Amino acid sequence: MGAMAVVKNPTVLRQLRYGNMERVLEVLRRKGPSSRADVATATGLSRTTLSGIVGRLLADNVLLEEPACTGGAPAGRGRPVHRLTLNPSSAQAVGIEMGRERLRIAVANAAHEVTASGGVHWPKRGSAREQADAALALLRDLAEREGIDLAGLSGVGIGTPGPGETTGGSAGPAGDMAPGVPRHRQSVADRVAESLGVPVLADNNTRLAALGEAIWGAARGAGDALHVTLSYGVGGGLVAQGRLFRGAQGAAGEIGHISVDAEGARCWCGGHGCLEQAASVPALLRAAGRRSWSRFTEALAAGEERECAALERAARAVGRALAAACSTANPQRVVLGGEVAELGPLFLDPAEAAFRRYTAARVNRGVRFVPAVLADKAGALGALALVFHESPLLAGYAMRGAPAPGVADAASATAAS
Amino acid sequence: MGAMAVVKNPTVLRQLRYGNMERVLEVLRRKGPSSRADVATATGLSRTTLSGIVGRLLADNVLLEEPACTGGAPAGRGRPVHRLTLNPSSAQAVGIEMGRERLRIAVANAAHEVTASGGVHWPKRGSAREQADAALALLRDLAEREGIDLAGLSGVGIGTPGPGETTGGSAGPAGDMAPGVPRHRQSVADRVAESLGVPVLADNNTRLAALGEAIWGAARGAGDALHVTLSYGVGGGLVAQGRLFRGAQGAAGEIGHISVDAEGARCWCGGHGCLEQAASVPALLRAAGRRSWSRFTEALAAGEERECAALERAARAVGRALAAACSTANPQRVVLGGEVAELGPLFLDPAEAAFRRYTAARVNRGVRFVPAVLADKAGALGALALVFHESPLLAGYAMRGAPAPGVADAASATAAS
Repeated sequence: MGAMAVVKNPTVLRQLRYGNMERVLEVLRRKGPSSRADVATATGLSRTTLSGIVGRLLADNVLLEEPACTGGAPAGRGRPVHRLTLNPSSAQAVGIEMGRERLRIAVANAAHEVTASGGVHWPKRGSAREQADAALALLRDLAEREGIDLAGLSGVGIGTPGPGETTGGSAGPAGDMAPGVPRHRQSVADRVAESLGVPVLADNNTRLAALGEAIWGAARGAGDALHVTLSYGVGGGLVAQGRLFRGAQGAAGEIGHISVDAEGARCWCGGHGCLEQAASVPALLRAAGRRSWSRFTEALAAGEERECAALERAARAVGRALAAACSTANPQRVVLGGEVAELGPLFLDPAEAAFRRYTAARVNRGVRFVPAVLADKAGALGALALVFHESPLLAGYAMRGAPAPGVADAASATAAS
Repeated sequence: MGAMAVVKNPTVLRQLRYGNMERVLEVLRRKGPSSRADVATATGLSRTTLSGIVGRLLADNVLLEEPACTGGAPAGRGRPVHRLTLNPSSAQAVGIEMGRERLRIAVANAAHEVTASGGVHWPKRGSAREQADAALALLRDLAEREGIDLAGLSGVGIGTPGPGETTGGSAGPAGDMAPGVPRHRQSVADRVAESLGVPVLADNNTRLAALGEAIWGAARGAGDALHVTLSYGVGGGLVAQGRLFRGAQGAAGEIGHISVDAEGARCWCGGHGCLEQAASVPALLRAAGRRSWSRFTEALAAGEERECAALERAARAVGRALAAACSTANPQRVVLGGEVAELGPLFLDPAEAAFRRYTAARVNRGVRFVPAVLADKAGALGALALVFHESPLLAGYAMRGAPAPGVADAASATAAS
């Protein structure tokens, strides 16, 4: 082979090597079961490189190698042709959402099919370590029950409440704690990374819900989507070409802190007149002088004026904030979730009317308002997508298809209620 | 080699093949001159694949293959070691801006260095064909004078005024005219693509200026940047991780059509109370009752109250619109250009104060306002960056460094004034 290559920049080589593995998997995803010769031709990789990659993937059970079916043709002489197949039972990625009330997990294989999912109520708000261990126990239970092999796992995504910075667990690409990352999220990520020996990516759970809806839910098939959750707070997320758009401080898509009132009071975030102060559940209760959401919705259903007026003002504020956000990001879908959005046309109609009044025709013709559909599954599915999407070599890659019906059933069956 | 590979999806294979070529170039960019064996090791490509790629790149003059310098060591026996080098005189990409008053061109080689640039005033506003031919003539002049070889060109980027859709020339990836693309831009792109036989990507020139400033200018090194040009109109652009963020209708980053006045009049865009109606040059002239910009700036310099008040109102509107845009996109830099921004602190101070009042602390701590620096070169440099960045295989790739001083000199020297 002549002179030894001098490696000047090992990072480049590592990326190229990881890239080659992803290319092999991508060929098998697109072409289905293939011989080694087919894969070599499709990727242009050398025998040595390919055989190293395939060897490792076979050892980890990510790939299976089986004799090809010869159909009606007479069997040839010599070695039978073997084909490489993605092992449907091997987990490539795991998504975990640690919500305020529930823990949810989803598992996908190298073909990017969701193969298992489940959830439990939190027994209590434990320490980071207890929460991580509860998630690991649920994952191992799921894997055992569904016959899933975790040996070939390439990464875990985790969503938790709190400001939206991204962080990698200690086995991950960003071992140091990023400034502004909640310590709790970092500790959970470290514990999971250490236990499973794979990189962990963690982010804000509302933002991961946005990604989940964009890939598998209400905004499926739309490249760019803006997500807003109108609940006890107002959260959001922005997805661009199937990937999370985070911005410099991880605050992109946080629609709740667009100012909708120039004379408005100071918000806890430091801004003034924020949408969250005008259109969250507590803001509506305040405006109507009610103490519980059920009372508010009853009064609304009875057509009481104070509640109707409060809701309409809030809806107009949401429409104006979304107009500014969509003039900036120009998405194809606006996904609306949370208790306030679930009030239906009484909220949606004035919100959409205000939105249309304050956007350019070009922007507002191209956008559709849709309700969130994945409910409490969105976060775990988004965490799963995060693992696939964060690889720079998968940039621009868009997952196709929603979870298969069988998978959705499995999710319901394993969910403790 | 056994059975022929069955190609099920030729597009995948074409992408992989193009990807392999880019990988070879990337290794040479990062490691410098390298032997074929080094490149094979770094990429994992087979001899056959590599030799096909290198053969084509040598034929197109993109690469040079030269005997390696042996230094003080005694020359070995047999064939001397040869090294592959990127040919500094071979053009890989060309960027063209057809502005309202000037035509500008920039050329870069496969090492992503700007090797030539130049500009001329338009003789007159000609047809698309005349404009394309003027650009082609200027390009060929530049190439001849600077000794640049166009045989290995892989793409051309073009910026023209008008709505911001992207389009590919007929030799490009998107031959059909995209809905909403100005016919003029499409005709120019087709003509250039046909004449040079390479893909052409075209976009709005203000948005390309945003990309130019992000890669080579005021926002260099900042992953995410928002650009706003306050001139006779108010234009903008959003750059995310070194790439243009376009949105669904190509309207992302068009800050000029964020509504800053709920009671404002209808704008030509279809919205109401748009920033463009409050902070463009004509809006300021209207507010102050002046007929020319020079009179307005003289009055402002003399401290006249009407002009000062009009500017301050406009600045506050800009600050509020940027606050909404930055709450959505959370960039690291806001780049301000155009006549209004060039007024300096009288404009910038109240704009920034309003901005800080209406953003979350997390967002506003992370952002810096900076003036645009590339002036009329930004568009052509952005068009150049567009070619490098549009390849899906270059996704996430960020160019390093500004044009070398020699290049900047060349640009001034060749620019007709």
